[in-house]
Amino acid sequence: MSTQNVLSKEEILEHWLGHRRLTRRVIEAFPEKELFEYSIGGMRTFADLVKELISIDVPGLNGIVTKSMEPYNHNLDLHTKEDLLKEWDANTPELIDLYNQIPIERFHESFNLFGQYEFPVIHNIMYFIDNEIHHRGQGTVYLRSLGIEPPFFWER
Amino acid sequence: MSTQNVLSKEEILEHWLGHRRLTRRVIEAFPEKELFEYSIGGMRTFADLVKELISIDVPGLNGIVTKSMEPYNHNLDLHTKEDLLKEWDANTPELIDLYNQIPIERFHESFNLFGQYEFPVIHNIMYFIDNEIHHRGQGTVYLRSLGIEPPFFWER
Repeated sequence: MSTQNVLSKEEILEHWLGHRRLTRRVIEAFPEKELFEYSIGGMRTFADLVKELISIDVPGLNGIVTKSMEPYNHNLDLHTKEDLLKEWDANTPELIDLYNQIPIERFHESFNLFGQYEFPVIHNIMYFIDNEIHHRGQGTVYLRSLGIEPPFFWER
Repeated sequence: MSTQNVLSKEEILEHWLGHRRLTRRVIEAFPEKELFEYSIGGMRTFADLVKELISIDVPGLNGIVTKSMEPYNHNLDLHTKEDLLKEWDANTPELIDLYNQIPIERFHESFNLFGQYEFPVIHNIMYFIDNEIHHRGQGTVYLRSLGIEPPFFWER
């Protein structure tokens, strides 16, 4: 079977950056207090979910690029909405730079991400994106239950 | 700039089918009554979110394959968990069959999906997958708030 490629390295990055713009708007939509204190059913706060994303995106890409297998650390020193948004914005150019450094031939090579997720590089990258969509979807329920209309899902 | 392709048509389908297996487990995890009656913050029930997915996946792919621009209809005659799961399972082979009929050269062609979403075919397909992850993430908050542990996100 010949493989028929339909998504380029550049298109996957664009797709991810579109999702990052939307996630940023969801962070912004939270009131300061609820961002760090509110959750449903014993789940983590949206700030903690965002900290998870921050703690895997750039560190994960850095691990892939430098072939380092250090574990992640979700426990970040970010305590205000401004902290989170600043970190998010600072991460974007780093993420682009690191992503662009991954040679095309490595996307289908296996890599033991964070020393515990042994998958092809492209699977780990798709996981970063899917995991962001998943947690952001959860954040939109928190917003709705607070009476706040979330940003439109289809606007990137 | 040369485009460097990293995801094949086959890999995107596998990725989607993995998500569909997980979504099926999330549907199964709901109690019958709550699947159709429970929601948070004025949102739709998880049954209605699943009906949205059902009403765009196979009909959308069918529209792409046959170049038909008929609108979707979210209002499906599915009233029990068994109805939903049966429809979900019946859709999977149809989805695979339709997806495989899309010629590789059409993925980057623009198509007016449902007569209202004019995007390259690959964008509409990625939207189907992202939208499923998004709504399933919302469903996991419903489950948590009902005291039910959702299936693991990383198991496909």
